[in-house]
Amino acid sequence: MSYTDHIFVDYRRRVKALEASNNPFARGVAYVEGQYVPLHEARIPLLDQGFLHSDLTYDVPAIWDGRFFRLDDHLDRFERSCAKLRLKSPLPRQEMRDRLIEMAAKSGIRDAYVMLIVTRGLRYVRQYAPEDCKNFCYLMVMPYLWVMDEETQKTGGSAVIARTVRRVPPGAIDPTVKNLQWGDLTRGLLEARDRGAMYPILTDGDANITEGSGFNVILIKDGKLHTPKKGVLEGVTRLSVLAIAEKLGYPHIIDDVPVDLAYDCDEILFVTTAGGVMPITRLDGQPVGSGDVGPISKALWKAYWDAHRDPELSFAIPYKD
Amino acid sequence: MSYTDHIFVDYRRRVKALEASNNPFARGVAYVEGQYVPLHEARIPLLDQGFLHSDLTYDVPAIWDGRFFRLDDHLDRFERSCAKLRLKSPLPRQEMRDRLIEMAAKSGIRDAYVMLIVTRGLRYVRQYAPEDCKNFCYLMVMPYLWVMDEETQKTGGSAVIARTVRRVPPGAIDPTVKNLQWGDLTRGLLEARDRGAMYPILTDGDANITEGSGFNVILIKDGKLHTPKKGVLEGVTRLSVLAIAEKLGYPHIIDDVPVDLAYDCDEILFVTTAGGVMPITRLDGQPVGSGDVGPISKALWKAYWDAHRDPELSFAIPYKD
Repeated sequence: MSYTDHIFVDYRRRVKALEASNNPFARGVAYVEGQYVPLHEARIPLLDQGFLHSDLTYDVPAIWDGRFFRLDDHLDRFERSCAKLRLKSPLPRQEMRDRLIEMAAKSGIRDAYVMLIVTRGLRYVRQYAPEDCKNFCYLMVMPYLWVMDEETQKTGGSAVIARTVRRVPPGAIDPTVKNLQWGDLTRGLLEARDRGAMYPILTDGDANITEGSGFNVILIKDGKLHTPKKGVLEGVTRLSVLAIAEKLGYPHIIDDVPVDLAYDCDEILFVTTAGGVMPITRLDGQPVGSGDVGPISKALWKAYWDAHRDPELSFAIPYKD
Repeated sequence: MSYTDHIFVDYRRRVKALEASNNPFARGVAYVEGQYVPLHEARIPLLDQGFLHSDLTYDVPAIWDGRFFRLDDHLDRFERSCAKLRLKSPLPRQEMRDRLIEMAAKSGIRDAYVMLIVTRGLRYVRQYAPEDCKNFCYLMVMPYLWVMDEETQKTGGSAVIARTVRRVPPGAIDPTVKNLQWGDLTRGLLEARDRGAMYPILTDGDANITEGSGFNVILIKDGKLHTPKKGVLEGVTRLSVLAIAEKLGYPHIIDDVPVDLAYDCDEILFVTTAGGVMPITRLDGQPVGSGDVGPISKALWKAYWDAHRDPELSFAIPYKD
């Protein structure tokens, strides 16, 4: 019996029910140009600047066991990101919120990865002032994605500190504005694969760790959590995990995190909406701490998933079936 | 009479003829998923990783006065870029080449901006090895785009040295692999606009200049051309201009270029396939050199456009009409 069973046994049951569904949106639904379409048929204009210059921002809330988790926190961050890039969603916040709930309800998906994207649209800011660009909005609700699969979560994943690539600095592309310019993170993923590991941690080029390919990093040493202040997304999952840790009696420090500490800590966690709390038990081919998923990781994992039923953080979606 | 007339008078005539055309591809044609479609109707999958993680590379050759210019040089660079990202075009090089020529001939466009893109496709490298990802190829031929318009070329454009953003460093995203991750360049464009100028020049964060939003930078001082070695695209247009300058008796240095030199040089040129040789006559609100388009800029401008008729560098497209 694994520490993950109390979550995964029920989840597997829901996935089976979804896979047996003949709902045309059961594999995912997208909202594109005013229409709901099956996700795998959705098309966007080739000339969208979101493609031609990756000129966009996005956010990813999740639905777990039929409940939207921290949706308004994601919408708050999304609005801040849009403002920083001088983008304006063509859908007002309330409509975006209503549509996401409607899409989930229509699709019957109980555990979902949800994506909101606003792109610059067809006009580019070289020729046009941002206020003269009609921005586009795309929404997606699809079955939950796992950055770390179930089996790996039981024993912990493997990571490397990338040495062939560094994270883009905030002075170039601001990582607090969620973006899809993953060139450095993709290079990191390829390096990790080449070195026989699953995930990269990128440094800031100055011997501090930043983040990985779609997740924040938390190092645990002597019962204290350490996570980078700069050069990273201010993750909603990280916020959740730090708050939970505080309640459980584990304090945290948000500051520069030297690479050294990664080799010297007791436990490593990657945290993201698409996977939750993901223990890392091997770094650069060596065990992290004892080499097993550590006690604080397990406690945070359990409390994180339990929090998804907290009515302060989540609400039920009105499914019809 | 402007120094640009010998090129633009004929060009305007060709543009008028194109605008009067009722060819359905006269506004542009795209090759997407095996079909030729009018550019403005072209759609790509929302789930293409080229959109969802900007996981792609591209290149931009041009057609001028019915002749493809340096197409094989662009295809060479494109192949190098694909190899570095472990992408493989689903179209072999010869087929890509043939299709681009066919698209130009079909559209009747005599002066074209041409774009080749290879994306990762629907699978992402977190879950799949690059060799197991079926990559996609999109091609576009559209009327020539000008990074600097005709009127501005006569008197020269205005630029700023960006101070709110730096260029992404090569250790994060390799700028020699042409990419569409323009977050830093877009921030630069917005800063330039806010400061009443047209274009940004981004620094490397270490007081050297790099490049701008889609162009290389050449500074001219005492008859010598200076252009950055690192942190920039190895531009085909820059290569053309440096070779032409050499022939005209103006040597060049490819090395670190300190920001200081931009304020202290005689002439500034931006160079790119989408616009050619673009003189900059104001920097941070002050005149560059005399404040007029300089003599070396004019000589290079003329020789660059004349080179488009050189059979060593270009070939005629077999139009039917």
